[in-house]
Amino acid sequence: MDRVPILKLGDVLIVSIQIDLHDQSVLVLQEDLSAKVVETGARGVIIDISAVEIVDSFIGRMLATIAAISRMLDAETIVVGMRPAVAITLVELGLSLGGVRTALNLEKGVAMLNQIENAQIAAASQ
Amino acid sequence: MDRVPILKLGDVLIVSIQIDLHDQSVLVLQEDLSAKVVETGARGVIIDISAVEIVDSFIGRMLATIAAISRMLDAETIVVGMRPAVAITLVELGLSLGGVRTALNLEKGVAMLNQIENAQIAAASQ
Repeated sequence: MDRVPILKLGDVLIVSIQIDLHDQSVLVLQEDLSAKVVETGARGVIIDISAVEIVDSFIGRMLATIAAISRMLDAETIVVGMRPAVAITLVELGLSLGGVRTALNLEKGVAMLNQIENAQIAAASQ
Repeated sequence: MDRVPILKLGDVLIVSIQIDLHDQSVLVLQEDLSAKVVETGARGVIIDISAVEIVDSFIGRMLATIAAISRMLDAETIVVGMRPAVAITLVELGLSLGGVRTALNLEKGVAMLNQIENAQIAAASQ
């Protein structure tokens, strides 16, 4: 079981990270996720890290890479469920998760995606 | 990381099982899930087992128990994402997952919950 399942709900993909990610499983996740974005035409990817107790620079880079790949494929990435201790560690490590949006939980992440889409529609209609 | 995170979206709780569940982690999941159902007033629990490669009688019993507990708390449980091989094994083992509803994927599970609720509303208004 070291393949992270990708759930689809409407045009949002939901990924819940529960396993310790190593080099190989991260690559598999990136490939699976980008394939799924293309296959489903998803406009958003929500990554739940509420089960992740330790975020190091490797995980931080992975999240930033996934966000960059998704953006290339026209999907926004939102990281949700970050533990307070993880936020503290990230700041102490000087990792800013560049390009990655965060929301408190899945619901707020979905709301954020809707806001982004509405803003894009409003911008396009001007 | 042997606590399964429980995601909430509207009045549905989503659980994605990715770790090998042992006696202790199953008990923790049952407790966490029932506490969360009460706390959030969720009307549905969706358990995604797309990452589960092997379902034995232990896992089958766990799913049935979670469904029974949730029902006590007025929430329906739907198991989604079952692999074909798992379905074959369950039938061969003679396990019927009594009382557990299944749907192909998360989207169909959410649709099923909506149908159940609509049917309950219709029944209540007669």
